[in-house]
Amino acid sequence: MPVLEINRQTVTQTAAICRYLAREAGLCGKDNWEDLRIDQIVDVNTDFVREFTKYYYEFDEKKKESLKRPLFNTIAPFYMKKFDALIKENEGYLANKEMSWADLYFTALSDGISHMNGSEITDGYSNVKRLQEIVNSLPQIKAWLAKRPADDFSFEDVLFAAANKK
Amino acid sequence: MPVLEINRQTVTQTAAICRYLAREAGLCGKDNWEDLRIDQIVDVNTDFVREFTKYYYEFDEKKKESLKRPLFNTIAPFYMKKFDALIKENEGYLANKEMSWADLYFTALSDGISHMNGSEITDGYSNVKRLQEIVNSLPQIKAWLAKRPADDFSFEDVLFAAANKK
Repeated sequence: MPVLEINRQTVTQTAAICRYLAREAGLCGKDNWEDLRIDQIVDVNTDFVREFTKYYYEFDEKKKESLKRPLFNTIAPFYMKKFDALIKENEGYLANKEMSWADLYFTALSDGISHMNGSEITDGYSNVKRLQEIVNSLPQIKAWLAKRPADDFSFEDVLFAAANKK
Repeated sequence: MPVLEINRQTVTQTAAICRYLAREAGLCGKDNWEDLRIDQIVDVNTDFVREFTKYYYEFDEKKKESLKRPLFNTIAPFYMKKFDALIKENEGYLANKEMSWADLYFTALSDGISHMNGSEITDGYSNVKRLQEIVNSLPQIKAWLAKRPADDFSFEDVLFAAANKK
């Protein structure tokens, strides 16, 4: 679970933490309306991830199977087409025609989505892919991606094993 | 689905809309850190509602039954105790020791939660109940509560009937 610790105070909630850091870093909109457009797309993105986790971490095989087809055939393409069109409309970014923390949030989450999707989620969506490349090419992000620890998904084996034992 | 329309532009996402209106109305924190504390509790509140909707709108009777006991015996009391303690710690409010849009958001959502809970969710939590009373006594909110249309839950009958037909 993502946690932020500042001055011995602990805060949870991914989007809230990211919004705070974005404010401190100057990655928000220039007025309340622009912030609303950013917040909206961030929450839509969170909904999108939730569709995947609902499927991916469903332990009942029958239920999981029933979620699979709608997710891969309908829900995922629906969201991805919307994101792609939105980025086109916003001249390369998700909101307000300029880079904001919505773009960083989206790109960071797309890694986990691709993992649950079984393949790169941006494949076939040229505007989304371009945004992903732009974000991942930012010098500081590029440097972090090069040195960050490899993803550790071993918790999933533990989780699925525990669920199968029940 | 909540939708905000301003200058012919349409925006969705409940929390994003409420945050925007709160900024315009001066119901946010006085700095980024205070806004983070507000955003955190708003997102926790959204998680809490989701626990109820997951149960309430589950159409598979077996699955629904399996969600019931954990929700009512463990999850709901866990959240409510946390909210109650937090309000006590913050001298009557959810964040920053003063009223913010987190308190209005919480009080508004508590109506729907009480509906799904089958009884008033704040019963037994004195600090939460006091906050609810304070919010609902604000002159403008009191006036709105007196004149707003009655809740219309008829969509639920349609929903449940459709699910049972499958």
